[in-house]
Amino acid sequence: MKASDVLSSDQTDINTGLVESRRLVDAALDSLLPAADVSPQRVHEAIRWSVFAGGKRFRPALLLASGHTFGATNECLLRTACALEMVHTYSLVHDDLPAMDDDDLRRGRPTCHVRYDEATAILAGDALQTLAFQTIAEDERLSPVTRVRLNSELGRAAGTPRGMVAGQALDIQAEAQKVTGDELDEIHRLKTAALIICAVRCGAIIAGSSEVELEAVTKYATSLGLLFQITDDLLDVTATETELGKTPGKDARADKATYPALYGLEETRSAAARAHREACLALESINRPTIALKQIADFTLNRTK
Amino acid sequence: MKASDVLSSDQTDINTGLVESRRLVDAALDSLLPAADVSPQRVHEAIRWSVFAGGKRFRPALLLASGHTFGATNECLLRTACALEMVHTYSLVHDDLPAMDDDDLRRGRPTCHVRYDEATAILAGDALQTLAFQTIAEDERLSPVTRVRLNSELGRAAGTPRGMVAGQALDIQAEAQKVTGDELDEIHRLKTAALIICAVRCGAIIAGSSEVELEAVTKYATSLGLLFQITDDLLDVTATETELGKTPGKDARADKATYPALYGLEETRSAAARAHREACLALESINRPTIALKQIADFTLNRTK
Repeated sequence: MKASDVLSSDQTDINTGLVESRRLVDAALDSLLPAADVSPQRVHEAIRWSVFAGGKRFRPALLLASGHTFGATNECLLRTACALEMVHTYSLVHDDLPAMDDDDLRRGRPTCHVRYDEATAILAGDALQTLAFQTIAEDERLSPVTRVRLNSELGRAAGTPRGMVAGQALDIQAEAQKVTGDELDEIHRLKTAALIICAVRCGAIIAGSSEVELEAVTKYATSLGLLFQITDDLLDVTATETELGKTPGKDARADKATYPALYGLEETRSAAARAHREACLALESINRPTIALKQIADFTLNRTK
Repeated sequence: MKASDVLSSDQTDINTGLVESRRLVDAALDSLLPAADVSPQRVHEAIRWSVFAGGKRFRPALLLASGHTFGATNECLLRTACALEMVHTYSLVHDDLPAMDDDDLRRGRPTCHVRYDEATAILAGDALQTLAFQTIAEDERLSPVTRVRLNSELGRAAGTPRGMVAGQALDIQAEAQKVTGDELDEIHRLKTAALIICAVRCGAIIAGSSEVELEAVTKYATSLGLLFQITDDLLDVTATETELGKTPGKDARADKATYPALYGLEETRSAAARAHREACLALESINRPTIALKQIADFTLNRTK
């Protein structure tokens, strides 16, 4: 199989596709991250501990699938895919801190501040964010025009007022408070969907899609982001600790705003089906081989971790 | 006075120049930062609390002075100057956290996590770093080629293994340990000088200086960065709390690696004079009006806060 076939239209088995895209992304991340034996070692070890913690590489896979849909090669997509994973990982490292969600376990392993220490975890997260923007700025396979556009997209999706940091802030604010359905949607849109939408858009932008195509695939990504968070909430209720790699039910205990807490299990499952349907509908308007994006939506609806 | 004259060669009074450049930078920062009444308000308030805390705007002033030296206008320099101040402020907010340097007071006011809370301070710092890279990526006055170069410079200066985060990691590692003079130099080079050098280089890059000029002004900035940290250490020993706006002597109590602790006061003062001399010497090879850069070196040698 050629590398460029991964997650492209002729890829029929989504799991094989995800495994292969993870292999490519992990190899690229390994070459982009500072070596663990370079000073300051402790921070570099902590960065690698957090990045290579067995994540699904969902955002990179999505960026690759979107890029392939509109005709880009892996070579042009991989650095930006890694940059998004760096931002995602930095957010997990900081969210797990005692002052934030205070999580000891992630993907079945001690979180960064538990394995190392809080100061190292703060610095590892900070450095990962820096490296994300630097990695895109220095991607010589892309034109400078594309690189600045990608860093603008990433900044908006990762920051505030309409990005990930804003979502995390609203999420913390909402703890132990009654939130409405609209408020919960807003938290999820910013905290989780913003970076998922960014992954899809960046793939299309690198491939040079038309504005109409970009708009259509953004619609897909918006529904997919919602679907991802709904299934995340569902898994927290239904999965076992072994499946999840973290303590299940933690969100409910912390009085976190979740869909099952607000609507109950049945209605939440319907909302997931609805978001999946809307994601698939958005793909229908795109006259490109969108099967990989469709498969990722199916995978997200049915995921067990 | 025209805006473009600020800190340029015909500016004879450094203090007037610094006040005027601070006014320009503060106005630009105000327009770049999210408004405090936009959701999530608490994070945006915390960002503004930290950015508008009465800092000297040393790095922006340096970037403007360097840019003017090589012929750039304020209009082309201001956004990048603000980006550097955002990175500097994010680093202060995170460094002040209990898990890091645990400072309650900065510039005479409660630090961000004391005024707000730890989670908000972590998120405010994270968002400021994001916005720094985004601000440069979206600076339409600069060519995309220049913008990606600036974001690359900023990433290298702010991150690891050769930037600010690496320096902070080494600094924490060195606490309560005996460090050699070389190790102390390395900590200062990364933690403080890297961003100061970045400010000088970014100004020259925006102005389109030659590679030879860029190398010469980098030499100046390297000595200036060292001088800045030496005088910082000296002030910690000699200044009163009122002058400093923070608890003096704190570094010594925390067994922090400092020049006076390693060499004594007299030898540290000689080192400051030596660094100042070398900074001025580097300017002599630049056939441009360098008086503003010279004045900043003088100011740094003689500063009282």
